[in-house]
Amino acid sequence: MTDKTTIVLETILSRKSVRNYTGEPVTKACLLALLKAGMAAPSARNRQPLAFVAVTERSILNALGEGLPYTKMLFKAGACIVVCGDTSVDLQQGATDLWYQDASAATENILLAAEAMELGAVWSALYPMPERENHVRKLLKLPSGVTPFSIVPVGHPTGQDQPKDKFKAEKVHWDVW
Amino acid sequence: MTDKTTIVLETILSRKSVRNYTGEPVTKACLLALLKAGMAAPSARNRQPLAFVAVTERSILNALGEGLPYTKMLFKAGACIVVCGDTSVDLQQGATDLWYQDASAATENILLAAEAMELGAVWSALYPMPERENHVRKLLKLPSGVTPFSIVPVGHPTGQDQPKDKFKAEKVHWDVW
Repeated sequence: MTDKTTIVLETILSRKSVRNYTGEPVTKACLLALLKAGMAAPSARNRQPLAFVAVTERSILNALGEGLPYTKMLFKAGACIVVCGDTSVDLQQGATDLWYQDASAATENILLAAEAMELGAVWSALYPMPERENHVRKLLKLPSGVTPFSIVPVGHPTGQDQPKDKFKAEKVHWDVW
Repeated sequence: MTDKTTIVLETILSRKSVRNYTGEPVTKACLLALLKAGMAAPSARNRQPLAFVAVTERSILNALGEGLPYTKMLFKAGACIVVCGDTSVDLQQGATDLWYQDASAATENILLAAEAMELGAVWSALYPMPERENHVRKLLKLPSGVTPFSIVPVGHPTGQDQPKDKFKAEKVHWDVW
């Protein structure tokens, strides 16, 4: 195994949902690195039907948190990234719309990039939950055709949150079930 | 930036859809490392509703490829991993079922782990396309309640496939849209 292999696999295994932050700000340069990671995710038929809102303004972070029952960590986060589907992007004829799969891959890339940068982040689902979507849509002034998919609070971790070992050999089947 | 940061971000940016393989086999140890990465993905409410079928048997790889119009690279792949949703796992009362978001994150982790291991892999969608799902379900003898979500051919890359730069600054909105 090369160093690269070891370091990347360790990062994947040590990624955790970080819900406790020190309160330190997150720089725009850090957010841009996270956004680049998000946009590098694979996209079905290379359609790239995503857009991103990066929020650092304290009043908006708080207002987002007020309407999202499971995302109260926004009050202490330095920033958040909202991953959105842009359904105005054309589908090829007859193709199934897989935008939410692309959005999931982008969200996971952002979480892994945060882990690598020693930031803490957590995936909080918005889609398909209309109340949560509408709260975010209104505050962030999203145009119609744009669907908020996930919200990822980002901050400097306090160190309280730890990874889980979720590997279970019985979930693997070899050649056939 | 630490070495870890640089190496992980570079791996995320250099991940590509690899469709051309040398034909060399992929070891079970490599597949296990990919499966560990897949299982380390975040899971909504930590429900972990996934299962995996790892295929190395030539005749099964070929039979899978025969029925999947966009996954002909299975004929040259050393292996594949089918990421499945196991909808028999209990939902908490009233909760929205997000298994396909978990499955997407697991698929992305597998792709990134492959990139880090200098293997080549590609995400080929099965869900929600009943014809593709049924072909895979039948060949892999999946029980009812288990839905094949994605199939990831894995092999040693020939070097032909290159990453795309998909970053577009206009897809980022700051604070509000």
